[in-house]
Amino acid sequence: MAGGEFALIEQLRSRLGKAGKGVRLGIGDDAAWLDPAGRQLVATMDTLVADRHFFPDVRPYDLAWKALAVNLSDLAAMGAEARWCLLSLALPPREAGYGAWMEDFMAGWRALAERHDITLVGGDTVATDGPLTLSVTALGLVDQSVMRRDAARPGDMVWVTGSLGDAAAALDLALVERGREGQGFPCSAAQREALEARRLRPMPRLEFGEAAAACGVCCAMDCSDGFLADLSHILEASGVHAQIALDALPLSRELMDLAGEDPERWQRWPLTGGDDYELILCAPPALAAPLRQAAAAQSLRLTAVGRILPTALDMPAAVTMTWRDRVMPLPTTWGHVHAL
Amino acid sequence: MAGGEFALIEQLRSRLGKAGKGVRLGIGDDAAWLDPAGRQLVATMDTLVADRHFFPDVRPYDLAWKALAVNLSDLAAMGAEARWCLLSLALPPREAGYGAWMEDFMAGWRALAERHDITLVGGDTVATDGPLTLSVTALGLVDQSVMRRDAARPGDMVWVTGSLGDAAAALDLALVERGREGQGFPCSAAQREALEARRLRPMPRLEFGEAAAACGVCCAMDCSDGFLADLSHILEASGVHAQIALDALPLSRELMDLAGEDPERWQRWPLTGGDDYELILCAPPALAAPLRQAAAAQSLRLTAVGRILPTALDMPAAVTMTWRDRVMPLPTTWGHVHAL
Repeated sequence: MAGGEFALIEQLRSRLGKAGKGVRLGIGDDAAWLDPAGRQLVATMDTLVADRHFFPDVRPYDLAWKALAVNLSDLAAMGAEARWCLLSLALPPREAGYGAWMEDFMAGWRALAERHDITLVGGDTVATDGPLTLSVTALGLVDQSVMRRDAARPGDMVWVTGSLGDAAAALDLALVERGREGQGFPCSAAQREALEARRLRPMPRLEFGEAAAACGVCCAMDCSDGFLADLSHILEASGVHAQIALDALPLSRELMDLAGEDPERWQRWPLTGGDDYELILCAPPALAAPLRQAAAAQSLRLTAVGRILPTALDMPAAVTMTWRDRVMPLPTTWGHVHAL
Repeated sequence: MAGGEFALIEQLRSRLGKAGKGVRLGIGDDAAWLDPAGRQLVATMDTLVADRHFFPDVRPYDLAWKALAVNLSDLAAMGAEARWCLLSLALPPREAGYGAWMEDFMAGWRALAERHDITLVGGDTVATDGPLTLSVTALGLVDQSVMRRDAARPGDMVWVTGSLGDAAAALDLALVERGREGQGFPCSAAQREALEARRLRPMPRLEFGEAAAACGVCCAMDCSDGFLADLSHILEASGVHAQIALDALPLSRELMDLAGEDPERWQRWPLTGGDDYELILCAPPALAAPLRQAAAAQSLRLTAVGRILPTALDMPAAVTMTWRDRVMPLPTTWGHVHAL
């Protein structure tokens, strides 16, 4: 980026990198100097590539929000307090330059960062001849232990925060609109807008992640690749089985209206759709009351969707799924078109 | 990367992410869980893009080394002990796949990481339609204070570790060889090989950075964009001036033979060439003896190249440069072709 790089870094520093909690030296030196204040550290890094993880015509505001949100969601799943981020931007040549683009990008970043008191403390800006590529590293702090994938135990209840499937349904519409492979369906402008907001600006469940860890929950994961795929990571890591009621999955009012009684749509959107950035938690029934209380205190929906069972030899898959109390076959594909 | 992504992550985990100091939970969960053991944190992130920061035909071994080294060099400049890294790989489609490529890449990463006891604790692998792009986040620890750019004071001596300019000279040869703009010069195969090794596998001065901070040095920066450009960042941040003896800059035996008495070559390579990944330090004369001792203990060359002066109004530039004790004009361009 030559001279432009320093101008860009200065812009990021002055707008997003001002003094923050535990920041002893932020953007502008060889590295940031941060004070964990005797606590433990949690670190994650995610990369988004244009046309793979987002549409190239995305509004910079939404792109910044999402790039930050997907990383914060990982910290939330560990039960960490989010603190600091580093951002790497690889920018392709752009006729109009990046002046207005960066303004909008920084506004989106700030909107989410300020909610959670997160400071940008470093990163890199480089030029690329390829698609716009962003990497974000998020750093958080925990006092005691973290929630992890390998800690589900038979008898645990399986919980999900918020609602699932909105982003996947919105992606279907966005793909069809762009002449790509997706599944169209009729919906109102208001429904569309509600779904699209969930797709573009996911809400990392940081506050609830911390509260759940404080309640004593040991097992959690963020739901980003689709509930079934992510749950299966927990089951595999923990060596357990789960029984899940498909019809118990939490749907937004809009998606409930659209999915109706069609189990195929329930499978496509909330079960395997992805990009929800909700939390999946597994916890003993004794924690049900405090968890419900913590969620209520945050006005966050929290839904029990199934149980963890011991693995048995005669179970062909890790998940037994029911629909209206009847066992139904698992979908053949769990994957999803990531994050566009 | 679909299924390939998980295989790749497992490969990275099992080869580069095994148990390490302070790693309570490494690759395989939503985020890594790390123990700073009550110390302060230092964090940096750098991104390399094919054909911008490295030749696309680079050996994966060397690419991994360099991507790690440039980040560790930033930690060294702060005086930090390097501990943990996160790696994001955006990989373009490749006919031969990434099996053998990754083997070589991991070997290069490991060669440098094991020298400094650094564990890979997270990251991301994604597909891209653009050039191969790598982002690395490096995390280190300090006990007390860090060395910083804005702490140079009048009277300080200016020091440089190792030698400067080899990478820039090697880049000249590599560019000419590829039919790009560079400055060819005759050299022997042995000279070429020595220069090229410095270009491909820079040695981050982590051990010396820690020792210098322990000696009480407050001001340092890593020399990556060219000595003059990087020194000017120190001078600007500290609000001071410097007098530098161009002919005192430390050159390798090979580069000394090639640069000879030609000040134009001294300007081109050690002064403005870049990609040295040495440390520039500014420290009061009282620290000269302990710094020399620390360097000697590590068999590392350490050279005094000038002095920090107060800024005076009649000084047109931040640096007064001499050659054989005579003031000479500064070069008109300080930039460099980055890191290819």
